[in-house]
Order: sequence, then structure tokens, then C-alpha cells
Amino acid sequence: MTILELKQGIFKENEVTADGIREEFKAKGKLMINVMSSPGSGKTTTLVRTIEHLKGIVRVGVMECDIDASVDAETIEANGGKAIQLHTGGMCHMDAAMTKQGLDAMGIEDVDICFIENVGNLVCPAEFDTGAAINVTILSVPEGDDKPAKYPLVYEVSEVVLINKMDAIEIFDFDVELAKKRILACNPNAKIFCISSKKDEGFEPWIEFLKSRLKEAEAIQHE
Amino acid sequence: MTILELKQGIFKENEVTADGIREEFKAKGKLMINVMSSPGSGKTTTLVRTIEHLKGIVRVGVMECDIDASVDAETIEANGGKAIQLHTGGMCHMDAAMTKQGLDAMGIEDVDICFIENVGNLVCPAEFDTGAAINVTILSVPEGDDKPAKYPLVYEVSEVVLINKMDAIEIFDFDVELAKKRILACNPNAKIFCISSKKDEGFEPWIEFLKSRLKEAEAIQHE
Repeated sequence: MTILELKQGIFKENEVTADGIREEFKAKGKLMINVMSSPGSGKTTTLVRTIEHLKGIVRVGVMECDIDASVDAETIEANGGKAIQLHTGGMCHMDAAMTKQGLDAMGIEDVDICFIENVGNLVCPAEFDTGAAINVTILSVPEGDDKPAKYPLVYEVSEVVLINKMDAIEIFDFDVELAKKRILACNPNAKIFCISSKKDEGFEPWIEFLKSRLKEAEAIQHE
Repeated sequence: MTILELKQGIFKENEVTADGIREEFKAKGKLMINVMSSPGSGKTTTLVRTIEHLKGIVRVGVMECDIDASVDAETIEANGGKAIQLHTGGMCHMDAAMTKQGLDAMGIEDVDICFIENVGNLVCPAEFDTGAAINVTILSVPEGDDKPAKYPLVYEVSEVVLINKMDAIEIFDFDVELAKKRILACNPNAKIFCISSKKDEGFEPWIEFLKSRLKEAEAIQHE
């Protein structure tokens, strides 16, 4: 497993770099998806389940972004995904230049969908375009249904919200309908899927979404 | 209830401003405590319980720091604490200059212990000295026992770690002894208390710690 120490990009160049990454993925008919959440919302477990569901159909790569750890990339590799561990050097988010360094080091020739597991943080990652085609935020039930109201930007920029740890709903005061209403107040077009990564429940709509978006990306490439 | 829009300070001046705040509190025999955690770890609920336990003994003030919300300050006031809502203007953390603005606006003359409820974020708040005498991090059980290994700085700078949501321990894979070991690897002197803010359990050692530290602060003032 590779561990890469990243250097941060220059802020004003971020958009240009991000657009370049998006163009490259588009030209190759591949998808990059940026996954954001609070620490401990279940990003790694959700990606492991996603890899299981896509096994034999879609080749998945994961760039694991952490301040200083390597356990998540090891977990992804143990579960059949291609993985690279990125160290952000204390930085609280990924930017497009850091993403580019990760992509170059991992290589995407044998990958159809590349996930970025961003640093666990609801604030800063939302402010930096990584070049991903799709942003996803995971909201876990124990965090509470008020998070979209308190950290609106990450929900505004996310096309998909996965409400995770649904298996714990009985013991937390979490109102799914209220959470959905608050997410949609941030982004009226958000697709919201309720899942339990631990119990492997509710993954079908999420997996169908991924397959359908990958098919679209491949179709555009072949036009 | 007051809502204050904050301006960020200059980084290199932060330490000087922070030391100034600490001196002011010391001279007055009061305590300022900075509470950090991931979003949804139970900062507000823990502070509400703490206020209940200290009622009639210690006068508590809370500076609620959010990007853009006011519900937490309302909750604190409804539960008998003095509160001010601080808006960080999108910033992912509190610094000493922002803390100073909050203290000036709230007023601490009728407060013995002033808590900062920092922005929910395990990364950035750890890098900025707010001028608090004591840093506290809340680690909630659903986040996982690996968080101290993945976000070490916030644990390094924290004198106290509250392991919260202990009432949910049965349904999560959370090893308390392993979590303690990982916290102590970051800060060998950390005091670790296991609590359930929801069920009001395990608060005695935390409350005793607060009373004892306030007594010390008052004693120094009277020397």
C-alpha cells in the first residue's frame, strides 16, 4: 500500500485544476466521487459495502485522505478495492491539487469509479472543489437530524446524501422526515438514501445511482 | 438572546491575545473552558447537563459558536445558563480574537465558568488557542474508538476527554479501554470520564473536576 504526503495547492488556481480533473475523467468515461462527512459517520464502512455490491461489475479505486493514519486504505485493499493513502499534512480538507497528486500516484487506468474519502470534517472540505463529478455527504443517525441546518454548505454542494447507521434509529432522537426536509432546504435536488453500512441494508438505490451515472459517463465518452 | 457576527484575528497575534484572555480570567478567579468535538457528539446536551449539576453552586456562561445557527444558545438559556450565540462567518474554528469579541459582548461579571462550545470539527479548532484555561474534547461512542488515532492533535491539547453516549455502547463496536489507551497515547495526562448526557449518567467526576479547578482559580485570585 502506498502512502503519499500531499502539498496544498494555491487557492485561486483550485477551480482551474478541479475543472481539468473533471474534463480528464469525462474524456475517459470514468467517474470521480468525493465523499464527505463528520469523523466517524461511516465513510470507510460505506465504501467497503459499495465495493462489495459493485464487485465484478465496476472497478473501484479509493483515495483515503487522512491527516496521519493508514488504516482506512488497508481496509479498502483487504476488501478488494484499489487504494492509496493520502496524508494531508495536517490540512483539514482536500483540494484539487492534492487530488491530482493522489490520482497521479494511484493511477486510474484500471478504475471505473474513483472515490475520494475526504478528511472527516463538515466545514472545510465543502469549500474546496476537488474536481469530483459528484459530491456525497454521509449523515449518520447518532449525529442528529439538525446537522443540515448547522452545516448547510456541505449539504448545498452534495448531489447525494446517505443517511447512515439507520440500524441505530431506535435509540436516537432522529426524525428522518425532518432530516430530509432540512437537507432539501440546502439542496432541493439532493438524492437521499437511507442505509445501514453495518447491516448492509438499503444499498440498492445508491448502487443503482452509481451504475446509472457511470453508464452516462461511458455513453458521453463514446459519442 | 444576542447573536454576534465574528471577525477572525491575525494568526501570529493569536498566542498573545490568548495569553491575555487567560491572564484576565486568572486575575478574576474565573475559568474558561473550550469544548471541542465532531458535529453531533453531544456538546450542547453535555453543557446543559453540566449547568443542571452546577445550578445554585457555580454560575455558568456559554459562548455557542456556530457557522450560522442560533438554536444552541436558545437551548442553553432555556436551561438556566447565560448564553451568547457567535457566528464564525463560515470559519471552521474559534481563535482568541473571536473569543475576545464574544466575551466582551456576553460579559463575564456574573459568570464563574465560561464555556466555549467550539465549531463541531476535530481538526481546525485544535490548532487555535482560544485563551481557555482548559481544553475538553468530547468523543461519542458512535464515532468509534479509533478517532484519537486519526485526529491526534485535538486529543494532545485536551486536558479532559469526555466519552459520551455511553448509553449506546451495546450497539456499537466501541472498546472503552482501547479508546482510553489511544487518548493517553496522545496525552498521557488526559483525564477521561465516561458519561451519557442523554441519560444523565457518570457526571459526578466531571462536576467534581470543574468545582475543584474553579476553587483553585479562586484561591489563586485571593493570594
